[in-house]
Amino acid sequence: MWVLGVTERRVMGAFWVLNLVLFLVQVVGIKGAHGIGEHGVRIWPMPLSVSHGHKSLYVGKDFKIMSQGSKYKDASGILKDGFSRFLAVVKGAHVVDGDTSKLDQSRVLQGLNVFISSTKDELQYGIDESYKLLVPSPDKPTYAHLEAQTVYGALHGLQTLSQLCQFNFSSRVIEILMTPWIINDQPRFSFRGLLIDTSRHYQPLPIIKNVIDSMAYAKLNVLHWHIVDTQSFPLEIPSYPKLWDGAYSTSERYTMADAAEIVSYAQKRGINVLAELDVPGHALSWGKGYPSLWPSKDCQEPLDVSNEFTFKVIDGILSDFSKVFKYKFVHLGGDEVNTSCWTLTPHVSKWLKEHSMNESQAYQYFVLQAQKIALLHGYEIVNWEETFNNFGNKLSPKTVVHNWLGGGVAQRVVAAGLRCIVSNQDKWYLDHLDTTWEQFYMNEPLTNITKSEQQKLVIGGEVCMWGETVDASDIQQTIWPRAAAAAERLWTPYDKLAKEAKQVTGRLAHFRCLLNQRGIAAAPLAADTPLTQPGRSAPLEPGSCYLQ
Amino acid sequence: MWVLGVTERRVMGAFWVLNLVLFLVQVVGIKGAHGIGEHGVRIWPMPLSVSHGHKSLYVGKDFKIMSQGSKYKDASGILKDGFSRFLAVVKGAHVVDGDTSKLDQSRVLQGLNVFISSTKDELQYGIDESYKLLVPSPDKPTYAHLEAQTVYGALHGLQTLSQLCQFNFSSRVIEILMTPWIINDQPRFSFRGLLIDTSRHYQPLPIIKNVIDSMAYAKLNVLHWHIVDTQSFPLEIPSYPKLWDGAYSTSERYTMADAAEIVSYAQKRGINVLAELDVPGHALSWGKGYPSLWPSKDCQEPLDVSNEFTFKVIDGILSDFSKVFKYKFVHLGGDEVNTSCWTLTPHVSKWLKEHSMNESQAYQYFVLQAQKIALLHGYEIVNWEETFNNFGNKLSPKTVVHNWLGGGVAQRVVAAGLRCIVSNQDKWYLDHLDTTWEQFYMNEPLTNITKSEQQKLVIGGEVCMWGETVDASDIQQTIWPRAAAAAERLWTPYDKLAKEAKQVTGRLAHFRCLLNQRGIAAAPLAADTPLTQPGRSAPLEPGSCYLQ
Repeated sequence: MWVLGVTERRVMGAFWVLNLVLFLVQVVGIKGAHGIGEHGVRIWPMPLSVSHGHKSLYVGKDFKIMSQGSKYKDASGILKDGFSRFLAVVKGAHVVDGDTSKLDQSRVLQGLNVFISSTKDELQYGIDESYKLLVPSPDKPTYAHLEAQTVYGALHGLQTLSQLCQFNFSSRVIEILMTPWIINDQPRFSFRGLLIDTSRHYQPLPIIKNVIDSMAYAKLNVLHWHIVDTQSFPLEIPSYPKLWDGAYSTSERYTMADAAEIVSYAQKRGINVLAELDVPGHALSWGKGYPSLWPSKDCQEPLDVSNEFTFKVIDGILSDFSKVFKYKFVHLGGDEVNTSCWTLTPHVSKWLKEHSMNESQAYQYFVLQAQKIALLHGYEIVNWEETFNNFGNKLSPKTVVHNWLGGGVAQRVVAAGLRCIVSNQDKWYLDHLDTTWEQFYMNEPLTNITKSEQQKLVIGGEVCMWGETVDASDIQQTIWPRAAAAAERLWTPYDKLAKEAKQVTGRLAHFRCLLNQRGIAAAPLAADTPLTQPGRSAPLEPGSCYLQ
Repeated sequence: MWVLGVTERRVMGAFWVLNLVLFLVQVVGIKGAHGIGEHGVRIWPMPLSVSHGHKSLYVGKDFKIMSQGSKYKDASGILKDGFSRFLAVVKGAHVVDGDTSKLDQSRVLQGLNVFISSTKDELQYGIDESYKLLVPSPDKPTYAHLEAQTVYGALHGLQTLSQLCQFNFSSRVIEILMTPWIINDQPRFSFRGLLIDTSRHYQPLPIIKNVIDSMAYAKLNVLHWHIVDTQSFPLEIPSYPKLWDGAYSTSERYTMADAAEIVSYAQKRGINVLAELDVPGHALSWGKGYPSLWPSKDCQEPLDVSNEFTFKVIDGILSDFSKVFKYKFVHLGGDEVNTSCWTLTPHVSKWLKEHSMNESQAYQYFVLQAQKIALLHGYEIVNWEETFNNFGNKLSPKTVVHNWLGGGVAQRVVAAGLRCIVSNQDKWYLDHLDTTWEQFYMNEPLTNITKSEQQKLVIGGEVCMWGETVDASDIQQTIWPRAAAAAERLWTPYDKLAKEAKQVTGRLAHFRCLLNQRGIAAAPLAADTPLTQPGRSAPLEPGSCYLQ
C-alpha cells in the first residue's frame, strides 16, 4: 500500500506529473520489460514493473543525495550510509577519472532525490519494502527520484539503481543506459531468507558481514543464524556463562557484542536476523559447560527433558536473545529428535513414567514448553516441520512452520491455518551441491496452494547453507549464484518469473559477474559435468565470466 | 645494513639501552624462539630472531602512532594508512568494547613509536625491508617501539605486531601475550612473488586488491601480473587502442588508470607490481585488434617475427607500461614458443630465408629484440627459462631468468652469472591442485647452490596462480594457505626454517585461521584424501579451523 499524507501527496503528485510528461516526451523507443528481461534489462531480481527508454545519461562526479519533502530524517544514518555504499559499489569496479563537467550537461545526472514517507526506521517483519524509482531521460530535471514508504524500501531502490549504473570505458565515467527508467517495485514475499550455520564451522565476523552485504545485493532480507548445534556452541550467553565452553576453541566464539554488531550491520542493510536455538535435538554442545543438560555422559542428546534446569537455561538464553535479537521471530528448531537417550537413561525414563508420557509425548512437551518460554519473552516462533508433522494442532497459533523435508508440506501447514516458510531440501538446500541453480529458480513456494487466504500464510522461503563442508574459505561460492536464483523467486511477482529457467541464464550470469565485481566470490553457473558439481564448482576452462 | 645518523643513533641508543634494562628485568621466563615456534610463537613467516617473556599487556583504547625522532615524514600517508589497517585487522575479528581505562594502567600499552631512518619512500627492488620491534613488558615505558630503515620495513613490523595481538574474551580488549617481545627481522630474499593471471579469467579490481591485502599479511612483496595471454587481452594500451579488442567482453577490461590504481594500492602495502608481456608465444589475443600481428588468420601464434609492426607494438606497449609500472623489472615471457606458424606461413618463411634464420634463431632474434626495447625503456628484464635454456649466453646481462620447468635450473643460471627467480612447477605452481602445502614449504631455492656469490644471484622465488580454472570465486582459496608456506621459505633464514614441514603445521593452521578472521577465504590445510585435493579443497567435515 502506498499511503501518503496530504503534503506529501502534493509534493509527490507534482513529482509524478512532471515525470509523466518527461516520460511521454521520451515515449519513442520506450519499452515495457516483460519479466525476463533478456533484451537489455539486467536487473536481478526483476522488479514488479519496469519501463525504459533508449537514451544514456552520465552520473555526475559529485552525484549527491537529497531528501526534499521527505518525512524521514535519517537520524541513524541508514540512508546516508546506504548511499555511500551505493557510490562505493558503483565506483569500485574501475577508476572513475572522466570529467563529467566537460560533457553535455543536459546528459549529466547531478543527484538522487529520495522521498521517504515514514519517519520510523524500525526494521521488522512485514514492513513496507516497496519503492518507485525514476531516472529521467537526458533533459531537466537533472535529478533521479526515489520514493519509498520506509528507508528499507529506499535501500532496495538504491540496489536497483546501482544495477543500472555501469562504467563507460570511453568517457571514463559512470553511465546509465536506456533512460528514462520508471520502476515500480515491491517484494512478493515478506520473508526472504538465507541460513548460515556457525556450529559446524565457525564463521568469523568479517565473513558474516560479507555474506550480509551480498544478501542485500540480491534483496534477501532475513539472515537465519543457526548459531548452535551438536558440534559447537560459539555464542556467549551471559546468563549461563559456561555454555560457550562448547565452542571449538577459545577464539572461535562470538561475544554478545559481536552478535549485536551482526544484528546492527544487517539492520542497516534492511536485513533482519532470525536467531535459532535448536531444541531439544542438535544441542549436544550445551552440555560441555553444563553436563546436567545431557541425559547422561554416555547419552548426550536430546537435552534432558526431565530436568527443570534445561528449561531454566532455555529461559536464560531467550532472555539474553531478546536483548539483542529484536526480530519478531525466534527459531526454536525441533527437528530430527531421536529420543532414545530419554528411554535409555534411567532417571529420564523414570520421569517419563511418573508423568505418564511416552517418548513422542515428551518430545511434544519439550517443544511446547520452549514455545511458552519464547512467547513470554515476546517472540513469535519458528519451528522446523517435524513439530507440525507430529503435533501440529498443539502448536501455538503464533508458530511459523519451517518446511525442509520435501515438497507438499506448505499446503498442509496453511490448510491447518498456520504460517509457513518453505525450504524444501531437494531444491533449496545450498549444501546439496548437486542441486542446480535452475532447480533453485523453479522451486515454487505456492505449489498447489490456490486459495488467496492460504497463500498469504506462506510468508516466504529460505535457502539453507548448512555448514558441514562450508567454512570461511568456501561459503560465498557455495551460496552464490544459486541463492540469487531463489531470491528472484521470492521477490518477483509470479507472473513475471520465467517459466523456464534457461530464459534467465544470461541475466543471472550477469548478476554473478556483478557480484564478482563487488568482491563477492560467486561461483560460475557451471554446467553439470561428470567432473564437477553445480554447487561451487570452479570454472572448467578459461573464458568470460558471462559465459561460465 | 643498519645505518643511522648521529642524532638518530643517540635517540635509538637510549631507546635500546632502556629496553635492554626492561628486558633484563623480565629475563625470568624469557625464551628465544627457535625457528619453528610451536610453543607459543605463532608469527608467520617466522622472523630472523624472536625473544619473548611471559607477561601480558593490553592495547589501549586510543592506541596511537608516534614518530619521535623519525626522519621519515610520511607525506604520502603510507605509514598512517598502514597503521589504520593495522588497527582495522586487529579490531575486526570481535567488537572491542572493554574499557582499558579501568585496567591496571601499567599493563596498558598506549601506542607505538615508529622510527624510520630513510626519508624516502620509493618502493624498488632490493630496498631495505628490515625492522626491529620491541613490545615492553608491563612497566614503563608504555609505548612499543618499531624501528626500520624504510617505511616498508615498518609496514612489515606492523604486520608482525598485528599477529601478536589477540582479542581477550574476558576483558573485551586487545591483548599481547608473552611480553616483552624483542624481534629483529629481515627477509632472506628480496623477491617474494605471487603470479596472478588475468587472461584466462578476468579478475575484477576488488578481487585483485583483496589478493594484495593478503600478500601483505604473508610479507610477499611482488605481484607478478601476467596480464595478457592467448585467451584475452584485458588491458588498455593507449598507444595501440585496439589491443584490448582482444578482451573477453567490453566490461572485462582494465583501463590504464585501473592499472595505476593496482600499482598504487600495492605500493602502499610494500608490494611491487611486475607486469608481464609474454612474447612471442602466448599472444594470440593481440591480433583481435591488429590481425597483422598474426602470421596469418589461420596461424595466429607466435607473433609475426617478420613484421616490423610487431616490434613497434611491443615498443608502444612498453612505453605505456613505463609510465605506470615503475618496478625495475618488466617480464617479457618467452616461454612455450611453438614456431611452426612461422615456417608454415609463406611470407614469414620467406623472411626467415632472406635473413638466413632458422626457427630457433628467429625465436632468439625475437626475444633479444624485445629485450633491447625494454632496456631502452629503462627496464631490466625477466624472461622465462626457455630463453636461457636455448640461448642463455646471448641474453642481456640485465636478464633475470625465471625458472618454471623443474628443479636444477637455478644452479645452471647462476653458474652462468645471471640472476634467477625460482618457480619450479612441480612445487610452486598453485594451479597444480595436487601439490601439498608441505611440498610448497620444503621447496628450497638454493638447492645445490653453495657458493655465496652464486647464492646472491637467486633473487628469490614466486608461486604462480595460473588462471585456467581460477576466477573471482576461487582465487583466494587456491592461493592460501599454500602460498604462505612458500612465503616463509622466502622470508625466514634457512637455519630457522623447519627441517620437516609437519613441525609447522599448527602455526600454519593458525595463520590460515588468521586470514579467515581478516575476511580472506584461505582453504583448510586439508589432508590429501581420495575425495579431495590439497589445493583449495573444502573442509571434509565439521570441525575447528585450527584442526583442518
